[in-house]
Amino acid sequence: MVGKTTEERTDENVVYVGKKPPMSYVLAVITEFSGGSDEVVIKARGRAISRAVDTAEIVRNRFVTDAEVKEIKISTENLTNEEGRTSNVSSIEIFLVKKKSK
Amino acid sequence: MVGKTTEERTDENVVYVGKKPPMSYVLAVITEFSGGSDEVVIKARGRAISRAVDTAEIVRNRFVTDAEVKEIKISTENLTNEEGRTSNVSSIEIFLVKKKSK
Repeated sequence: MVGKTTEERTDENVVYVGKKPPMSYVLAVITEFSGGSDEVVIKARGRAISRAVDTAEIVRNRFVTDAEVKEIKISTENLTNEEGRTSNVSSIEIFLVKKKSK
Repeated sequence: MVGKTTEERTDENVVYVGKKPPMSYVLAVITEFSGGSDEVVIKARGRAISRAVDTAEIVRNRFVTDAEVKEIKISTENLTNEEGRTSNVSSIEIFLVKKKSK
């Protein structure tokens, strides 16, 4: 976020992983890196967490081999459904960064 | 592993998360901590990864509130099935440590 003002901070370098096949999200991450991002955050909740890890691993091993996992955070989010009931759901954030080229 | 010889190093402080309900693994982690471990590693592969994150979050938020996530590692394992075919599967290791009591 260095060099960006608050107004310019967007979620543009975040990829939210849902129920699509992992390659959809792999493509989204590759597109972010190709567009000049040095860091891409892969986020997911609940069962999609496994797919988020798959996405990071596929990107790193097959497509953007100069990317590495900088940090992984897990947390619990409190969701309220349509009926007003609340439930806890786990979430993950995987920070992928491109290593500086030599 | 400080103070342990190679022979004594076992997987006793590792909890492997599979297909059972998360509370089974939560109980296993609590038991490890109660038995005197300062660090417990929660491991899982494939779809069980989401459950491993659930396990860590439930332990930390509800039962062992002085535990924190020290590190999370993700990797890819190459598995060979009965027919000799290989496939890649993502895996996770969550390192939970007890904070020093004041």
